[in-house]
Amino acid sequence: MKVLVAEKCGFCHGVRNAIRVAEKTLAEKKGVYSLGPIIHNRDMVEQLAKSGLKTVSKIEEIQSGTVLIRSHGAAPKQIAKLREKDLNIIDATCILVKRVQHIATEFENNGYEVVIIGEENHPEVQAVVGCARNVIVIANESDLNRLPENARLGVVCQTTQSPEHFGRMLGAIGRTNFSELKVINTLCKEAIKRQESAVRLCKQVDIMFVLGGLESANTRRLAELCRTVNKQTYHLQNWDELDKSLLTGEKTAGVTAGASTPDWIIDEFRQNLEAFDNSSSSGKATV
Amino acid sequence: MKVLVAEKCGFCHGVRNAIRVAEKTLAEKKGVYSLGPIIHNRDMVEQLAKSGLKTVSKIEEIQSGTVLIRSHGAAPKQIAKLREKDLNIIDATCILVKRVQHIATEFENNGYEVVIIGEENHPEVQAVVGCARNVIVIANESDLNRLPENARLGVVCQTTQSPEHFGRMLGAIGRTNFSELKVINTLCKEAIKRQESAVRLCKQVDIMFVLGGLESANTRRLAELCRTVNKQTYHLQNWDELDKSLLTGEKTAGVTAGASTPDWIIDEFRQNLEAFDNSSSSGKATV
Repeated sequence: MKVLVAEKCGFCHGVRNAIRVAEKTLAEKKGVYSLGPIIHNRDMVEQLAKSGLKTVSKIEEIQSGTVLIRSHGAAPKQIAKLREKDLNIIDATCILVKRVQHIATEFENNGYEVVIIGEENHPEVQAVVGCARNVIVIANESDLNRLPENARLGVVCQTTQSPEHFGRMLGAIGRTNFSELKVINTLCKEAIKRQESAVRLCKQVDIMFVLGGLESANTRRLAELCRTVNKQTYHLQNWDELDKSLLTGEKTAGVTAGASTPDWIIDEFRQNLEAFDNSSSSGKATV
Repeated sequence: MKVLVAEKCGFCHGVRNAIRVAEKTLAEKKGVYSLGPIIHNRDMVEQLAKSGLKTVSKIEEIQSGTVLIRSHGAAPKQIAKLREKDLNIIDATCILVKRVQHIATEFENNGYEVVIIGEENHPEVQAVVGCARNVIVIANESDLNRLPENARLGVVCQTTQSPEHFGRMLGAIGRTNFSELKVINTLCKEAIKRQESAVRLCKQVDIMFVLGGLESANTRRLAELCRTVNKQTYHLQNWDELDKSLLTGEKTAGVTAGASTPDWIIDEFRQNLEAFDNSSSSGKATV
């Protein structure tokens, strides 16, 4: 089967950094914890677990040792709690996510109502929510009633949303009765390039695969965008999850992957896909 | 014929003030000029001309006397020119328009690229354009290429635009590659109430009349909005302009008017319309 891999896909700078920090810490220390999965990729988290990383969902589960703050960040209250417990803290928060947190705090200090466009339960958004007293989360148009009337709104966006969604929500906010709107563009430019590259690719293929954690916001967003262009789009975690009957009759497949998907998952998927039809022997094509 | 008049229509605060200032000045002084029509209503301008107001299009046409700055304002350069000629200046600029001018200057002083959403050739917009070195006018989506990449944009809106258009354009700007967006809501709340009242009314009537100057931006906007709800919408300046054959077979007519349309034009129109069908005798109904 002919396989085309998106020009831009896989690990972003923030994820690569978080993995590097985790691996370095695991090599140097014992009793290393991550508060929530360090990145949204089960296979990668399992691999790090084998090297000793313990992923916990609550601070109460940690008694001593070193705590890694994952790429999505943590709220100041959580950091304070970790400090109280005298734990060694190593911060692997993505610098772009850190910037969103700073802006939220700045907005509040300057008298703005803080608004974040994003998914309420995503850890990145939750950490930002913890950076000011009252952060309003707007996932879509149905949340607009959360906005106060006639207010000064300071707006940021979850880094992995698409410019299309960001713009649509700014338009919707712009129709409300606001007094002032200050918006800082906090979209990740890497994520945008991956989205553009994925959309370009899925126009050229019969079937499109988006590889990445099911909880990974940027992977879900990639899959959503691809689906608008190519209905034969599937979001999978790895080759094992693929229902091979989907490939029947298809000639060209496209592959992209979220920012938290390691290269070996993409490579394995591509190789298996290429081998699936013996009549085809194309190499790793890029678009 | 049954006639319903919009609850909110006709003179707004800014126009009423400009007319009051003009009448007072004309009663006290001789040689009174207006730089451009004082408001966008031919009948009203003609009435003031009878009282002595001379409307000129260029400063060069004025040698001495008093100059009224019309409700739409004037650019600082124009005011400076008038001062140089030692003319007596009386400012009848609407306070909301004045606010847009101040914000544009503030934006520029704070390092923003100044953007106004509005009609490029409208005098209100032209006066704002004159308040900063480089003001970018965005009338609709096709003007978005005027925006610089990756910039800090300070955005205001022509006061008489609709929240719907303002929101749509903010959404479109939000999809571009901006760095920061600071938006001050400069829409006139009176204009919005008139728009809402007109839209409500035109859902209830067979035929809708929007009275006001053909150059009046707020009247044109009212007509546009009404047309989206009731295709039988006509923008006229007064009763004389009405093609009476349009009324054939219609039972209920709605009437609204722009912010620069005097009451006597609305009253005359309503009375003539009511008298048009002798079988109907409803009073001035309000919705």
